[in-house]
Amino acid sequence: KINGERLWDSLMEMAKIGPGVAGGNNRQTLTDEDSAGRHLFQRWCDAAGCTMGVDEMGNMFARRDGTDPDALPVYVGSHLDTQPTGGRYDGVLGVLGGLEVIRTLNDLDIKTKHPIVVTNWTNEEGTRYAPAMLASGVFAGKHALDWALDRVDAKGKRFGDELERIGWKGPEKVGDRKMHAFFELHIEQGPILEAEGKQIGVVTHGQGLRWVQCTVTGKESHTGSTPMHMRKNAGRGLALITELVHEIAMKHQPNAVGAIGHIDVYPNSRNIIPGKVVFTVDMRSHLLDKLNAMVTELMERAPQICADIGVEFEAEIVGQFDPPAFDETCVAAVRKAAERLGYSHMDIVSGAGHDACWINDIYPTAMIMCPCVDGLSHNEAEEITPQWAAAGTDVLFHAVVETAEI
Amino acid sequence: KINGERLWDSLMEMAKIGPGVAGGNNRQTLTDEDSAGRHLFQRWCDAAGCTMGVDEMGNMFARRDGTDPDALPVYVGSHLDTQPTGGRYDGVLGVLGGLEVIRTLNDLDIKTKHPIVVTNWTNEEGTRYAPAMLASGVFAGKHALDWALDRVDAKGKRFGDELERIGWKGPEKVGDRKMHAFFELHIEQGPILEAEGKQIGVVTHGQGLRWVQCTVTGKESHTGSTPMHMRKNAGRGLALITELVHEIAMKHQPNAVGAIGHIDVYPNSRNIIPGKVVFTVDMRSHLLDKLNAMVTELMERAPQICADIGVEFEAEIVGQFDPPAFDETCVAAVRKAAERLGYSHMDIVSGAGHDACWINDIYPTAMIMCPCVDGLSHNEAEEITPQWAAAGTDVLFHAVVETAEI
Ligand SMILES: NC(=O)NCCC(=O)O
Ligand SMILES: NC(=O)NCCC(=O)O
Repeated sequence: KINGERLWDSLMEMAKIGPGVAGGNNRQTLTDEDSAGRHLFQRWCDAAGCTMGVDEMGNMFARRDGTDPDALPVYVGSHLDTQPTGGRYDGVLGVLGGLEVIRTLNDLDIKTKHPIVVTNWTNEEGTRYAPAMLASGVFAGKHALDWALDRVDAKGKRFGDELERIGWKGPEKVGDRKMHAFFELHIEQGPILEAEGKQIGVVTHGQGLRWVQCTVTGKESHTGSTPMHMRKNAGRGLALITELVHEIAMKHQPNAVGAIGHIDVYPNSRNIIPGKVVFTVDMRSHLLDKLNAMVTELMERAPQICADIGVEFEAEIVGQFDPPAFDETCVAAVRKAAERLGYSHMDIVSGAGHDACWINDIYPTAMIMCPCVDGLSHNEAEEITPQWAAAGTDVLFHAVVETAEI
Repeated sequence: KINGERLWDSLMEMAKIGPGVAGGNNRQTLTDEDSAGRHLFQRWCDAAGCTMGVDEMGNMFARRDGTDPDALPVYVGSHLDTQPTGGRYDGVLGVLGGLEVIRTLNDLDIKTKHPIVVTNWTNEEGTRYAPAMLASGVFAGKHALDWALDRVDAKGKRFGDELERIGWKGPEKVGDRKMHAFFELHIEQGPILEAEGKQIGVVTHGQGLRWVQCTVTGKESHTGSTPMHMRKNAGRGLALITELVHEIAMKHQPNAVGAIGHIDVYPNSRNIIPGKVVFTVDMRSHLLDKLNAMVTELMERAPQICADIGVEFEAEIVGQFDPPAFDETCVAAVRKAAERLGYSHMDIVSGAGHDACWINDIYPTAMIMCPCVDGLSHNEAEEITPQWAAAGTDVLFHAVVETAEI
């Protein structure tokens, strides 16, 4: 078993970097806080005897050598970036859990045949730079490197420039590494494991996602002196589409979700009727046909709904992945590890997107989930217990060691 | 008649300060641009032989002496601040029209019995600091000075600090001045005069206003892994109340308007269900009972509408004034001036709030309106013709000179 206390201490230490305002974290990608978190991770990896590689997307790879020079490494990891009002475990547990696997191997003086590499993927959250899982997506060949480096944040800052600014643009070509397998430990971010009283979720599938960035265009005018019949109120377009998205998601219960999290109103003045509203619809389902049907319904109905109130609707997909099915051998290794360790477990579908979803497209991949309190995530109040963290990392350890062979 | 060309040149000169991105202006209150605009106005007033007074709210008063030392001054003016995406005439015409009255009196070497004072009221727009017409409101005794100085903008900057920073906090006690009368020339900001083909609007009444700042509180959580039935989506509260406001305003047609112009979403991340949305409802009517009924209906229905979707509703009035009825003698002076000059005119109700609405509560007041193209205002594309500007200023000149007596 891994050292649960050391793992927890490391989680708490990392949480000191980029503290939030309510006990969580604001360590958004490519900020100074992100850089500081990376430096701490690097120091810990150095101390554990690993060698670090960094690629042109800033992805970090800490390697512990294996005994067979020809064996491909087993990769583990997740991400250290957070939401603007994020929790202390989302992503971080997967990276520091991976580090704990290596520390435990060192403690026990175990040599594996395959090397083991702990990875920190850049910009998993996708808040500052859409889409989410940007750097693992480039690694998996889903996005062109130049396209990714040219992404801009809300302030117009380029991803590539910010990556250089914080000093974490590495020399390695993105995606050059070959993997024997990839394992990602992550908190569930939903309520199922806690409700079912299970310590471990064996992730068999994930939801697919579509991010549809919508622009509703009306006409800026005075809220007082513009007669009602002359208004082109882009805010009403937002309102009607908010409810449309909810209606579409409810139609597919319990197999889909949908909401709008990001909204920018222009010019956002109390006495100006909004001339433009830009917002992003987030739709998900683990069933590809449902996911596509939802987007089709949105795209078909939204323009007419907007036209009926005199405003224009435009939309663009800014993030997407299809529902992944994880590798059967890797999934079996996770399930077997949970059983061997005597942890209660169940098969589960990941509600969120993860770097593992992209890596799964190119190498055998599986995920392990542990519960989180009230299913709450993307909230500073996100919470897990040290026992849950340790159990998940125990399973990670056993699955990885079995796959990396002693 | 006044010098229309000189007036237009001054309007265009002022528009160079704080240019917008689409031909209009961004010269928001208490910014460096506001300060630069004030300096230009001061230079022009100095050149016209006026003496300038500035009060503790930054209100500027440029005085041309009269012949009777005991006669109270006739005040004219409006505001030089603009919306973030504002036009070149909203407010500015009333200030520079007032200056043109003085320049014309100088040209003609006319002495009036009453002094004439051209005023630039601070923060009429209310975008950066709610409520609108803040400084004329303090002048009229509607707000306490300290309360006004303590207003904060979206970045947390205090009104009083910003006023000092730009160097326009004056020594005069606010509201110490006594007025014989007050006249404000303003663009209509609505479509009626243009549609009716009239050059002059004789403003008899105005709409009252209520700004209701609402906070809908839900719970931040993950857009992917939070099941639909566990969501507390504050964005849906915004959506339903957007439509409620529209429904309430439509019920009272053609005697009321309502919309939401300002919306802040927290934490505004694509994959976080909004935990909080703060927005301001703008409701107006020239009929006080309707205005009150609208706010009552909003306050009664919104909490239940929000409760039904699991979110909380709170509201606070951040701006309000009752429908004003302007002074009959001053209004008659405006009507007579239009008739004498042979300009087509009609009685009209002001859709927007104006500094004149507050001053009307304490001194005899009237307003003159000129048309604007397509009724468009609070938009950089706001437009008027030099002829409209000159006609409005001619009427202002005659009404003021009659009231100030030769
Ligand atoms: N795990 C996680 O929160 N990933 C962010 C991408 C997503 O929105 O699912
Ligand atoms: N005239 C004008 O736009 N005033 C701002 C206050 C209001 O919203 O009516």
